[in-house]
Amino acid sequence: MHRDEVLFANEAFYLAFANADYQAMAGIWSGRGDVVCAHPGWPVLQGRDEVLASWRRILGNPDQPRVSVHVAGAQPLGDGAALVVCYETMAGTVMVATNVFEREPEGPRLVCHQAGLCSEPPELPPRPPPGYDA
Amino acid sequence: MHRDEVLFANEAFYLAFANADYQAMAGIWSGRGDVVCAHPGWPVLQGRDEVLASWRRILGNPDQPRVSVHVAGAQPLGDGAALVVCYETMAGTVMVATNVFEREPEGPRLVCHQAGLCSEPPELPPRPPPGYDA
Repeated sequence: MHRDEVLFANEAFYLAFANADYQAMAGIWSGRGDVVCAHPGWPVLQGRDEVLASWRRILGNPDQPRVSVHVAGAQPLGDGAALVVCYETMAGTVMVATNVFEREPEGPRLVCHQAGLCSEPPELPPRPPPGYDA
Repeated sequence: MHRDEVLFANEAFYLAFANADYQAMAGIWSGRGDVVCAHPGWPVLQGRDEVLASWRRILGNPDQPRVSVHVAGAQPLGDGAALVVCYETMAGTVMVATNVFEREPEGPRLVCHQAGLCSEPPELPPRPPPGYDA
């Protein structure tokens, strides 16, 4: 999978997250039944229904801090998949996230997302939140 | 990648971890330069040298608690890769881990590992640590 293609998909994921756009978020996740998602501190969520229910809850929470993202690296995986490792920042807290995408007919779709607290974050360059024109 | 094949590789990773076997750990990680690893709370480590240096430090620490693992799910990714999501238990603390493997000529090799604290773990079935005959 081409690097630009997976970075574009990753950006779409964080745009949906930052804009609390559930429909966009649902479109970014794979249609596969066996997707997995681990929010910080949460147990593993498995299956599209359980994963999307968690995102509906998170994106519907008016107190959810707005996320911004800094990509740390992107790697192709075999022929039809790729992963992106990021730092997510929310209300001053930094998380590390791994996002795994698989090629589907419409483009790369998310099959796994894990985010966890980064207690010793590096200094991240300032960056406007997604969807914000600098 | 066949499910049994990736689960075997995942088990080999946790055996190396539990037995503090650095040579085995080094053999499980891909030869790719761009592997990534995020230990709980740590910043993202990138590149085989940086990742293996962290494992040398962890496995060389005599106070490192012994890990045990419970696989939550395994999924193929395209043709040549697969991911395994696990719960790791160390000294009563539960972590969620995502392990991404890619097919290399010798078999599946680890290209990405992220582990993060699971503050609300499910009840995990009791299981002997890897390398221990039940």
